[in-house]
Amino acid sequence: MIIVMKHRASAADIDAVVKQVETSGYKAHLSQGTERTIIGVVGDDRPVQSHNLEMLSGVEQVVRILQPFKLASRDFHPEDTVISVRGVPVGGPRLTIIAGPCSVESRSQLLETALAVKEAGADMLRGGAYKPRTSPYAFQGMGEEGLELLAEAREATGLPIVTEVMAPETVSVIGKYADIYQIGARNMQNFPLLTAVGKTRIPVFLKRSMMGTVQELLMAAEYILAGGNRQVMVCERGIRTFETATRNTLDINAIPLLKKWTHLPVFADPSHATGKWDLIAPTAKACIAAGADGLIIEVHPHPAEAMSDGAQSLKPERFAQLVRELRVLAPAVGRMM
Amino acid sequence: MIIVMKHRASAADIDAVVKQVETSGYKAHLSQGTERTIIGVVGDDRPVQSHNLEMLSGVEQVVRILQPFKLASRDFHPEDTVISVRGVPVGGPRLTIIAGPCSVESRSQLLETALAVKEAGADMLRGGAYKPRTSPYAFQGMGEEGLELLAEAREATGLPIVTEVMAPETVSVIGKYADIYQIGARNMQNFPLLTAVGKTRIPVFLKRSMMGTVQELLMAAEYILAGGNRQVMVCERGIRTFETATRNTLDINAIPLLKKWTHLPVFADPSHATGKWDLIAPTAKACIAAGADGLIIEVHPHPAEAMSDGAQSLKPERFAQLVRELRVLAPAVGRMM
Amino acid sequence: MIIVMKHRASAADIDAVVKQVETSGYKAHLSQGTERTIIGVVGDDRPVQSHNLEMLSGVEQVVRILQPFKLASRDFHPEDTVISVRGVPVGGPRLTIIAGPCSVESRSQLLETALAVKEAGADMLRGGAYKPRTSPYAFQGMGEEGLELLAEAREATGLPIVTEVMAPETVSVIGKYADIYQIGARNMQNFPLLTAVGKTRIPVFLKRSMMGTVQELLMAAEYILAGGNRQVMVCERGIRTFETATRNTLDINAIPLLKKWTHLPVFADPSHATGKWDLIAPTAKACIAAGADGLIIEVHPHPAEAMSDGAQSLKPERFAQLVRELRVLAPAVGRMM
Amino acid sequence: MIIVMKHRASAADIDAVVKQVETSGYKAHLSQGTERTIIGVVGDDRPVQSHNLEMLSGVEQVVRILQPFKLASRDFHPEDTVISVRGVPVGGPRLTIIAGPCSVESRSQLLETALAVKEAGADMLRGGAYKPRTSPYAFQGMGEEGLELLAEAREATGLPIVTEVMAPETVSVIGKYADIYQIGARNMQNFPLLTAVGKTRIPVFLKRSMMGTVQELLMAAEYILAGGNRQVMVCERGIRTFETATRNTLDINAIPLLKKWTHLPVFADPSHATGKWDLIAPTAKACIAAGADGLIIEVHPHPAEAMSDGAQSLKPERFAQLVRELRVLAPAVGRMM
Repeated sequence: MIIVMKHRASAADIDAVVKQVETSGYKAHLSQGTERTIIGVVGDDRPVQSHNLEMLSGVEQVVRILQPFKLASRDFHPEDTVISVRGVPVGGPRLTIIAGPCSVESRSQLLETALAVKEAGADMLRGGAYKPRTSPYAFQGMGEEGLELLAEAREATGLPIVTEVMAPETVSVIGKYADIYQIGARNMQNFPLLTAVGKTRIPVFLKRSMMGTVQELLMAAEYILAGGNRQVMVCERGIRTFETATRNTLDINAIPLLKKWTHLPVFADPSHATGKWDLIAPTAKACIAAGADGLIIEVHPHPAEAMSDGAQSLKPERFAQLVRELRVLAPAVGRMM
Repeated sequence: MIIVMKHRASAADIDAVVKQVETSGYKAHLSQGTERTIIGVVGDDRPVQSHNLEMLSGVEQVVRILQPFKLASRDFHPEDTVISVRGVPVGGPRLTIIAGPCSVESRSQLLETALAVKEAGADMLRGGAYKPRTSPYAFQGMGEEGLELLAEAREATGLPIVTEVMAPETVSVIGKYADIYQIGARNMQNFPLLTAVGKTRIPVFLKRSMMGTVQELLMAAEYILAGGNRQVMVCERGIRTFETATRNTLDINAIPLLKKWTHLPVFADPSHATGKWDLIAPTAKACIAAGADGLIIEVHPHPAEAMSDGAQSLKPERFAQLVRELRVLAPAVGRMM
Repeated sequence: MIIVMKHRASAADIDAVVKQVETSGYKAHLSQGTERTIIGVVGDDRPVQSHNLEMLSGVEQVVRILQPFKLASRDFHPEDTVISVRGVPVGGPRLTIIAGPCSVESRSQLLETALAVKEAGADMLRGGAYKPRTSPYAFQGMGEEGLELLAEAREATGLPIVTEVMAPETVSVIGKYADIYQIGARNMQNFPLLTAVGKTRIPVFLKRSMMGTVQELLMAAEYILAGGNRQVMVCERGIRTFETATRNTLDINAIPLLKKWTHLPVFADPSHATGKWDLIAPTAKACIAAGADGLIIEVHPHPAEAMSDGAQSLKPERFAQLVRELRVLAPAVGRMM
Repeated sequence: MIIVMKHRASAADIDAVVKQVETSGYKAHLSQGTERTIIGVVGDDRPVQSHNLEMLSGVEQVVRILQPFKLASRDFHPEDTVISVRGVPVGGPRLTIIAGPCSVESRSQLLETALAVKEAGADMLRGGAYKPRTSPYAFQGMGEEGLELLAEAREATGLPIVTEVMAPETVSVIGKYADIYQIGARNMQNFPLLTAVGKTRIPVFLKRSMMGTVQELLMAAEYILAGGNRQVMVCERGIRTFETATRNTLDINAIPLLKKWTHLPVFADPSHATGKWDLIAPTAKACIAAGADGLIIEVHPHPAEAMSDGAQSLKPERFAQLVRELRVLAPAVGRMM
């Protein structure tokens, strides 16, 4: 941490800051510039409330130097983490394709989709039984009945299942069915939920908030890791910007940046990131070219009748076409399918 | 809802859309332009999945016309809602000032602050016992012990207390102490939490997410209202933008916009919206001039030692000065204190 | 400037950075942390290409410490700059109200508006003769004929005139008429234009870009100041964010921040910042309460027929009402009108 | 255009709007909903000031239906535009790679880079002689001397040259040297400049503003096209968002969206879009996978000594490696190099 003093800060101001740093158990390292005095804080200062130091008289600015996450960082864990989900390795050279409907709506809808995505080449099945919906008047998901249908679809296809958990009190019931917990974008900073899944040993698929920075995404992963659950995947799913022509803006830069900063597997969700079915295929390919370890894609047999996210779902035949295109692309960027 | 067809959409495409609208129980109203056909959907279409219609062949765009919220809307409830909290009316001509520390840290810190803000003229006391923290390594709040200290501070000062609830499972314990539940910005779209507080009859102070639109804020309020709890206050607390010189960007436009769209009391939080203690007073005055019904402000006796949010906390004497300035300002914009 | 080395950067990497700093004429100041080495650059490093240093082997990050502007900074010019425009002092305790139509459309429209705003209490008249329009098919302004009408309106009312300049080649013709050059938001970083007005001695009213930071606004002012023209006013006019309910988001935080960072007069434009006539009055009052030195407001006698910006223009009677309200507000926040 | 009336708008309000629409030469088409009346405006309403209609009594909202651009639209020009630049076809199945330094700094720097990028496989040479710089104290470019060096480099390598034009008064001198005018991001809405290059017959490489929507980018292209110059390429170069870990956020969605909306060739600039040299290769590949017709990439022989943009420049050997990777990738996504 670096403390920048104001132009013309007094010697007393500087002394007071140095004293505060030292009483917190750190060493202070003074550097006298022509216009400013700068004070370096030496030691692992992750827990320090940097903002408080800004309150001290004569302080202009406090700059953090270290990334605030540790367990999620490549600095401390240089090799890629590979997570095995019912024998499917996630995070290694082989790409992982997760597909399925936004919501589980009925037995026939789910089984039809599950068989279709399996046939097309998906590695895992997604489907929500508990749904976060902007409107209290919209379909809220089938609940435990939906989980049972997911288990039945897994039985029928052999695909591991990924499903969303929204509140600490459903962690336990969902844990009876799910192979992977999904934490949705709106819950990226739902700390009681992160803490709750951190206590389990079920892998977690953590989606970036639409206004979360890459650093905050890794801090959210740190919550889960710090709880003892080391099986975390992170997923770029589009951020909110001024551009309204698409539902969100896929932050493609985040993919190589995440690969550089963390050892955790990195996914992308081109369905939510674009919100338009006809942009899914080109952006899905872009994510793989940028280095993503896998994709999560919404597929629905009859998108116009979907109870949620129809506009950003692929029909099974379009999904199958995309998988064929990815099979051509993957070796051209050094990956396997 | 308006469905805009593509340039050169076929008659069959148009027929298919009309049919889909009618089988959903609405009337379709065709309008043939020179370049486009436009189909109006007649009826209360709030529950319709507008995005799904975009999947139909020949559809260019679907435009929603109605605001998706109803109970929160001034259209259906033209008079201001006034909420009485232990006899303090919130939302009428008199301004409501809520002040106190970010976190309850100790008995002495809380009581010192409570007496100071009471003395300065605050109407209610804020303080968090359960804290959402970006880092798992940061102070997470005192829990129920903090709630007991808040109750003691209420006893000592007569000030009603506002405290944050972060998860459905703590709604009940916090409800034993709180006069107002605070829902924090990161939980604005924590739907299980909104549903849980909607079942109580304790007033709710709902903060706008840093990534939430004004419309989404009112949809979150709608969740609580739809649950039967009609005592909701909404609070602008800064949104996330590209500007990094301040912690967030106070969306001052949102204040008169909220007053126009909703009958619920509208607050502002200049502490979080700026993140800098020396910007709190000018922006607090701005919010009142723009029509806010009240303010929530962080006050700490020793900000440089605060366990959270020190940089955006006022010292008690600065808070007292601000209240004096607001007493001069309020009548100049037609309000009382 | 602070150079943060990577975890495990080699001694050779550190030596190379120190050498590069020293060959650029600065002193390097080493600070060995537990996890990182940090190198301070001592000297006035404003002209240094900080980003280039990031290219050197072993460098993690380069952090600039000094604000890059100097002439615009309060550090080097602590007193408020007061600019006299035909005897009207701008930037002192008295507020300055600039009003008028977006575009000069005709003699009658301009004179009617000019007399009305004068009568209502405006201090200066605004009106565009050269208009930046998003569409090539929209009205582009009356050009020099519009400037003549502005001069006639000045004659009739005594109000100094503010009008926009869009290109270096019209600086000279506009300079024959204007009392103040306006630089529009889209031209905040039109460097040839900034350079051109910097060579004149006519005051400049510089609007913040809808995606310019406060720091970039002051760097744009620095361009003009560095050219020798010290009469610059800066204006917050709304930034572009994810919120679409209003045309832009008025960054109210920027007003006290600008007052803290610069000695130049600070204005606000609630017309562009909201884009909605019914939000102008509350946000105008907010800007004054936050410390703005003046306002610029669009007024049109028949907004529904305006050739540009009708939706964000006040009718003369509503403008007069606003001025009456500001006369009540100003003394309550320590200002005069 | 659709005009949505307020809940409980009076019959007189509705009549007044209909009258206004009809006196502007359009037909009004009424649609009575259960809660709102909606008025369709029939005819090519691109030139109508939609915002003004919002001023009329009883109007809630005005929604534009048509895209405001016409010449740039695929609706009116379904086939891809292919532009020939000194025999190099741009916009067809073959990808176009433009490379070179940010600024022309010296004869040796430019020639060394030009030969290196030619050798590596670039199709064109970029280099700025007139530079837009945020700071008035930074290097501003070599001016016409730089243009002469670019011409010499073209002579030496056969590569067509792309160079930036910043002001209408330099259009003519730059036109004597350039094969393609580059309009930089900060000038996307510099309307006098767009008009000036629209009058020439030299191809234009138009970069998206960091604050421009895709629609606004195509409106800027429309300015040039409407002037008679039909040789326009558009380029995504990163937008400004809340994420600060990268210089900008590459809007990858914009690439397939542009390909859908316009027939003009679509480029991407991974150097500016990321601001970090080590993110250029993965994002460059992503852009090609997403459907871009070409790339523009900054290359500098000694990035740490570059006078601008060093941190986002590739060394020649890294650029050569990227071109080799693109040669593998291109056929996997149906393109040639």
